[in-house]
Amino acid sequence: MKLLEDKILKDGTVMPGNIVKVGSFLNHQIDVDLLLKMGEEVKSLYSDTDITKIVTVEASGIAIATAFAAVMHVPVVFAKKYQTLNVSENVYTASVHSYTHNKNYNIYIERDFICKDDNLLLVDDFLANGEALKGLCTIASSAGANVVGCAVAIEKGFQKGGDSLRKTGLRIESLAIIDSITDGKITFRSVS
Amino acid sequence: MKLLEDKILKDGTVMPGNIVKVGSFLNHQIDVDLLLKMGEEVKSLYSDTDITKIVTVEASGIAIATAFAAVMHVPVVFAKKYQTLNVSENVYTASVHSYTHNKNYNIYIERDFICKDDNLLLVDDFLANGEALKGLCTIASSAGANVVGCAVAIEKGFQKGGDSLRKTGLRIESLAIIDSITDGKITFRSVS
Repeated sequence: MKLLEDKILKDGTVMPGNIVKVGSFLNHQIDVDLLLKMGEEVKSLYSDTDITKIVTVEASGIAIATAFAAVMHVPVVFAKKYQTLNVSENVYTASVHSYTHNKNYNIYIERDFICKDDNLLLVDDFLANGEALKGLCTIASSAGANVVGCAVAIEKGFQKGGDSLRKTGLRIESLAIIDSITDGKITFRSVS
Repeated sequence: MKLLEDKILKDGTVMPGNIVKVGSFLNHQIDVDLLLKMGEEVKSLYSDTDITKIVTVEASGIAIATAFAAVMHVPVVFAKKYQTLNVSENVYTASVHSYTHNKNYNIYIERDFICKDDNLLLVDDFLANGEALKGLCTIASSAGANVVGCAVAIEKGFQKGGDSLRKTGLRIESLAIIDSITDGKITFRSVS
């Protein structure tokens, strides 16, 4: 999506370790009007499907999922990352490895909020190693729900999570795919 | 706001300790269309102001802030709860006491995202003791930004955070104020 690619080039910053910092518009400060336009694009890409619910992982996935849902008029469910006092034990869980923090964490969704009749769109801001999406797929599978596909803002194509998940048959629509970062210069993959 | 009060009565659950569980539509599964209508109400309540940015705290404030921003067409900034590897040291911080978890935690916002020219609307899903809003006020004050007011989905009027903050002159618009819970029965405060 050219609008997002242009925004990344204009306002993103490449940090050491090929970390692309987009906190000024995507995951700290949030350009909600941009997210709504991204939601229109995702709605169009998935217009051949009948999505019943958008699923993401807290915290940075929530804004994008909410904006997409505002366009698509379906509920959002976000997986939580740790037990809080007022969540029942009646949950679906999955373990997710974080390469950023080099540790595993658990995510969970209450059983009441996903069922076998659901057609889920999995959403996240970044796709690198694909661990969060894999965790959401595990939860969807536990619930017997259908995963229509995934919608991601920025995929790091040089990490292999996206391509590896596509090989399993999972549909992934990434609005911007960064294929390489050389000397701080970002090159996007052409999306046919 | 009658729509929200009715939703709380219909789909909310009162748990031991007067915890009102609204995970089915507000902070785990999210009824985004409801949030958009709440955003319209908040936009109307604050129509006499010139809000430049909506500020909240991760994670449960993000969905409501994003939905309000989708209606009001301003950016969102959410305060983060702990340091991650790709956040600079150049931040405004505040300490917040969590009564739910009985501990203090730090929140921070990067300095680039709030400035003295901003008119901020502080948003949260719940207002009980007012600790999160106080933390956001501290950050706004550090940045020299103006706080136009607060917009909250559900205020627990029987805890005194909201009324105590109002006494300091802070404008708080709560879309539903629960004044008492007796034997599991919720009574709302009449909003004039």
